[in-house]
Amino acid sequence: MTDQESNHPTAFEMASRQRDISVSEFFLKNRHLLGFDSPSKAIVTTVREAVDNALDACEEAGILPEIRVGVAYDGECYHVTVEDNGPGIVESQIARIFGKLLYGSRFHKLSQSRGQQGMGISAAGMYAQLTTGKPMHILSRVAGEPKAVELYVSIDTGRNRPDIHRKKHVSWDRPHGTRVEVELEGRYQTGPHSVETYLKQTAIANPHVTLIYSGPHGEALRFERVIEELPRQPTEIRPHPDGVELGRLIQMLSDTKSRTLLGFLENEFSRVGRKTAKRIIEKAGAALSERSYPRRIAHAQATRLHRAISRTRISAPPTDCIVPIGEARLLEGLHKELDADFYTVVTRPAAVYRGNPFQVEVGIAYGRPGGLGLEEDDTGHIRKTKQPAAGDSDALVARADEPARLLRYANRVPLLYQQPACAITRAASQINWRGYGLQHPKGGLPVAPMAILVHVASVWVPFTSESKEAIAAYPEILKEIRLGLQLCGRRLAIHLRRGKRLKKEYDRRSHIVKYLPHIGIALQEILELSDAERLRTVEALEAVLQRERGH
Amino acid sequence: MTDQESNHPTAFEMASRQRDISVSEFFLKNRHLLGFDSPSKAIVTTVREAVDNALDACEEAGILPEIRVGVAYDGECYHVTVEDNGPGIVESQIARIFGKLLYGSRFHKLSQSRGQQGMGISAAGMYAQLTTGKPMHILSRVAGEPKAVELYVSIDTGRNRPDIHRKKHVSWDRPHGTRVEVELEGRYQTGPHSVETYLKQTAIANPHVTLIYSGPHGEALRFERVIEELPRQPTEIRPHPDGVELGRLIQMLSDTKSRTLLGFLENEFSRVGRKTAKRIIEKAGAALSERSYPRRIAHAQATRLHRAISRTRISAPPTDCIVPIGEARLLEGLHKELDADFYTVVTRPAAVYRGNPFQVEVGIAYGRPGGLGLEEDDTGHIRKTKQPAAGDSDALVARADEPARLLRYANRVPLLYQQPACAITRAASQINWRGYGLQHPKGGLPVAPMAILVHVASVWVPFTSESKEAIAAYPEILKEIRLGLQLCGRRLAIHLRRGKRLKKEYDRRSHIVKYLPHIGIALQEILELSDAERLRTVEALEAVLQRERGH
Repeated sequence: MTDQESNHPTAFEMASRQRDISVSEFFLKNRHLLGFDSPSKAIVTTVREAVDNALDACEEAGILPEIRVGVAYDGECYHVTVEDNGPGIVESQIARIFGKLLYGSRFHKLSQSRGQQGMGISAAGMYAQLTTGKPMHILSRVAGEPKAVELYVSIDTGRNRPDIHRKKHVSWDRPHGTRVEVELEGRYQTGPHSVETYLKQTAIANPHVTLIYSGPHGEALRFERVIEELPRQPTEIRPHPDGVELGRLIQMLSDTKSRTLLGFLENEFSRVGRKTAKRIIEKAGAALSERSYPRRIAHAQATRLHRAISRTRISAPPTDCIVPIGEARLLEGLHKELDADFYTVVTRPAAVYRGNPFQVEVGIAYGRPGGLGLEEDDTGHIRKTKQPAAGDSDALVARADEPARLLRYANRVPLLYQQPACAITRAASQINWRGYGLQHPKGGLPVAPMAILVHVASVWVPFTSESKEAIAAYPEILKEIRLGLQLCGRRLAIHLRRGKRLKKEYDRRSHIVKYLPHIGIALQEILELSDAERLRTVEALEAVLQRERGH
Repeated sequence: MTDQESNHPTAFEMASRQRDISVSEFFLKNRHLLGFDSPSKAIVTTVREAVDNALDACEEAGILPEIRVGVAYDGECYHVTVEDNGPGIVESQIARIFGKLLYGSRFHKLSQSRGQQGMGISAAGMYAQLTTGKPMHILSRVAGEPKAVELYVSIDTGRNRPDIHRKKHVSWDRPHGTRVEVELEGRYQTGPHSVETYLKQTAIANPHVTLIYSGPHGEALRFERVIEELPRQPTEIRPHPDGVELGRLIQMLSDTKSRTLLGFLENEFSRVGRKTAKRIIEKAGAALSERSYPRRIAHAQATRLHRAISRTRISAPPTDCIVPIGEARLLEGLHKELDADFYTVVTRPAAVYRGNPFQVEVGIAYGRPGGLGLEEDDTGHIRKTKQPAAGDSDALVARADEPARLLRYANRVPLLYQQPACAITRAASQINWRGYGLQHPKGGLPVAPMAILVHVASVWVPFTSESKEAIAAYPEILKEIRLGLQLCGRRLAIHLRRGKRLKKEYDRRSHIVKYLPHIGIALQEILELSDAERLRTVEALEAVLQRERGH
């Protein structure tokens, strides 16, 4: 190799430097991927990961969640504590759940849950360890056990496995539940990226949850549940054949326990019954039969099978694997936490991306209270409405000269960061809001006193990073969000047109009413009326005008 | 547990569902994290990952890179082939490099390279496998070996390890190099998110590389190197103490081979010599001495040491671990691939985020050719410039009514996707471009016939996801980009003001020149001049005007 200088390494020297990278090392170095890129975000992310786990556990165990969140400052660092009334964690699992990345119960099943990766809470622990060197402190009690388990655990990042520092059995006045305390370097923030905002938005999408918060400066908040009933538990499903790739099909064929192709199709997929399975096999052609042994199907045959599946009409996936918030509850949530003039919500039917069912819900809250300032009663009278007190500065509805506030949710979890990177933002920017009577700068969000809520629920939400802050822009997901926004937009347009008509009417009538007394005087002169007659005439004219314009 | 219904699982049942998640399974399900969320992106991402590896290997081995990229369509799927003249890969390493996630040579060292995660090319293979079921096909020859190794390899995703399908030794006419072929489902695209754009932008930032491309529709492109010299090889460095967190310091204290605290500080950090180390230990206080045994330093002492480090002035990190493109080469690259009226570039001094040195370079190309349309020569004459032919539609400089084009680079690799999520976009949107005479809609990019190039080079680029498409918004990085943009912006403003002055001048002169003949006639009448005298006078007047205004 004449062009290679002697101080450069050879291929053999280069080979000797190849090494395994532990998944914990990887994420420690890339901690921003997990939402730990700044001290203020670290606190919110830690709270979110712990609350996600608590809510998932409570709901799975059929317990109405009551979660206590505490953020305290000891002069050096922050202590984040999250305590739930959930089922507790079995002793043998605690260390791995909190001290190992990529360990969990939800990754391998297709069913809606907040956590899906088996990373979040361990990542919080890893960040704590990195910034303060302190292990996580966990207390957990399973119902029926006489004592709780207390554990201090950190992560051996080189090996991605838990290090248990201390473990003992202690008394705890809770009958069952889990408490985790994380000590980390942080910065406490208020405003749109705060623990309080996160909790408020969580309350909107989870009306069955009670959240109790105490902050580092004596803040005490309580979001009380308004529904004494758990959401329906989502069922687990098999993959839907739409969107199953050829390579995945080949893998499934080689992994299956079914001994015939017919059985394979019936057992492994959602919405494939005997009839559909037979139709697929028929379309796949001569080389394949109902009795073909799945593991012996060659690549070329699998390719034909894959094509046959894509050419067969298969019903949409069942929707009981997804639990939307529902239009009624969503509306209730918006009314409860957002002050506005006009509300509308829609829950779209379930759709599929890459074989994964998902469902989109959209809500719009428009106009700060009293924004329109006029109302029309049943008799056609238009009146000025009472002006309520001005909302707080943390209001979730934007001011009239601001871009609309976007409240983004994935599986009932509010997404506070990375708004520009999110499919929800992209869809909301692409809609033609001018068509609905709003101001809309090109490429941005509409400028209006408005909050737009979008909830994407799915058996697998495709986030743009492990920190679960933004949803990836799969075309199917974009389309559903767009359709939901358009429906809400059309309803808003009707409201706005009605508002504009009222305003115009009101102005016109005020104008006439202003001149009625002068008309009265003119008539009095011409017709030689008495003062009483003049007043009666004016009143009669006013009444006629109101009636006429009112219809 | 009275509130728990019988059909809900117990804590023990829930515990039994906890499982390990293989890192390959994780990324297969989250393939969009690796840049494989759409068929068109899959092709570009595959090319990029393979070219990144090829360039890194060539440069490390001291070879001027010549890379052949091929994209072909066989009627069913795409074949992406990347072939380099690099050092080749030693036989025992090939399978793991291509068939295992989180395996590589660059993760554990602090030095600038394109690849850093040990994931990219294996991810391409995993996507190929998923969509077509076909393994990757690799050919590699190390200099001096009589034969090349040919290998078909796929990934066992459940175990994250390579599956070798076939391996043999074959003749290859190259003396050394590597060739990888990936067969995947894809969609071929032209425009800003295309293989061609990626290659063109790569050529701008890598003037020492020759790229040869053949596309699926007979496209044949050749980007010839313009510099016959490799960039300086970056040196590996130790972490800089600025930004090393307490937890990391504790970990380093327990991992070190140094037997004294003084030795530890001197050996493990960049820019800490004996004098600085002594000063740090002094500040840390009584409990610590130069001879303290690092592994025995308790948490409280480590906290004091950490605080002492942050209070000690330590020089900026050495910059030889980073290899910027350099102002001269960057300007050359812009001139070569972008047609514009005005160019300016700046290479900022190196800075540090989280202990990682990084360096920002910014370039601006303004005005489509002939955009200004006027030039002033040395004598002060203003002339219309010749209008060159209109640029192609793929021009990297925006039209006058479009937002400026952003060419984003990280370690010389162009970033084509996720522009809204990138720190470069955020910084470029936050600058006050109106101050430099440009139109600038709030929150967006300036609207101008302009391309803005930003290159972030670092020993560790913090990407927002494993797909390496956008840079995370660390405040230190944002600040450096902003400073670079502002300097270029000021230079642009001078150019624009000059342009405006020229335009004004030109208009004024044209106006006067237009009336000069009439003035000539008037003078002729008043002064009774001959026709020849009149013409001479007009000419003299014109010359005087030009001279006067020209200074």
